Amino acid sequence: MPQPSAPSARTRLVREADRAVYDRAAAYKILDEGFICHVGFVADGQPFVIPTGYSRVGDNFYFHGSAASRMLRRVDEGVPVCVTVTLLDGLVLARSIFNHSMNYRSVVILGTAHAVTDPQEKLEALRLLSEHIIPGRWAESRQPNEKELKATSILKLPIEEFSAKVRQGPVIDDEEDYAFETWAGVVPLNLVAGEPLDDARLMPGLKAPEYAKNYTRKR
Amino acid sequence: MPQPSAPSARTRLVREADRAVYDRAAAYKILDEGFICHVGFVADGQPFVIPTGYSRVGDNFYFHGSAASRMLRRVDEGVPVCVTVTLLDGLVLARSIFNHSMNYRSVVILGTAHAVTDPQEKLEALRLLSEHIIPGRWAESRQPNEKELKATSILKLPIEEFSAKVRQGPVIDDEEDYAFETWAGVVPLNLVAGEPLDDARLMPGLKAPEYAKNYTRKR
Repeated sequence: MPQPSAPSARTRLVREADRAVYDRAAAYKILDEGFICHVGFVADGQPFVIPTGYSRVGDNFYFHGSAASRMLRRVDEGVPVCVTVTLLDGLVLARSIFNHSMNYRSVVILGTAHAVTDPQEKLEALRLLSEHIIPGRWAESRQPNEKELKATSILKLPIEEFSAKVRQGPVIDDEEDYAFETWAGVVPLNLVAGEPLDDARLMPGLKAPEYAKNYTRKR
Repeated sequence: MPQPSAPSARTRLVREADRAVYDRAAAYKILDEGFICHVGFVADGQPFVIPTGYSRVGDNFYFHGSAASRMLRRVDEGVPVCVTVTLLDGLVLARSIFNHSMNYRSVVILGTAHAVTDPQEKLEALRLLSEHIIPGRWAESRQPNEKELKATSILKLPIEEFSAKVRQGPVIDDEEDYAFETWAGVVPLNLVAGEPLDDARLMPGLKAPEYAKNYTRKR
């Protein structure tokens, strides 16, 4: 596994450098809790940003490419991308407007993404993507056939140039503002799964499995 | 207010065109429920994607620019951006792997963002951004002073070229897969606020206000 390396000029955080995290393990923890990324790429000088599902496997980041249709025209030669994963943890309500903030954890990866073309590698990447999003589901589903696999696009981005940014904990106000008479604190935010909704055409006797009933991203 | 217009070549959805929503009111509803966007911009040919808070005001999209430090070097001349807002509503567990999906609503806006430089406009944009994220908070906070306002960066993007994409509702499986014996359905996902956490240095007698205790994005 590559060692954590010093940030490149492109990933070094210029502002709010105190929130920067360059540790690979910390970044991977964020990537493993999330499952939606925003992929940025350039076409004709115009940036595009598209949400899609992903999975981290070792030091590679695999993401679903179907939504990024524009990107895929050039995907064989490799596409320069920026992939960002953001987990929102709370609203930070300070006494001053200026010190209002959010608690969040985010990772930015820069690099060149390539389409996974080998059918075996693609099938395995798809399995790992599925397992990342909802562990246990793959084995209970009807497996992809050759045509479906061909119609699926998976991109692979080596996790080499990356940075993470974390803001957590309480309000930080200017010292003189602690005497300002207003409530201050943090409103926690969580992504919460509700009760699974049975499909209308469910076969009789089938019940929602544990991975659907107790879905959570906290590991 | 500009009328909904035909999608441009750049915002027309090539794949999954059935999920496309070009209606301005529908897009605004999505923008008004969210409050975190992912801003994409290009620097030295490299795309960057950065999460930040935003607000929609009429046909303009205002977003906090401090995090996008690289962008700000050229912000006076205007920065080509793509701003994407994604609301995640659920995991769609089909019988086949191929038909697995997510329920989500997303909006993509393309255009040129400019820094808001006029102090009065900036203060008002900041107020509207605050009101968008947590209505009621602005009036109870210590207002920004001149120095803070100067240190705050707000960007304005006219909502002209945009598209929205929505996937909602139940599983859609291939007809022959309905006989495959596995549970199928939707796991709903929601962003849920927890109990507000009082700041450790809270003035005695202050209680969390309603807007913090019952925080929700559903309007």
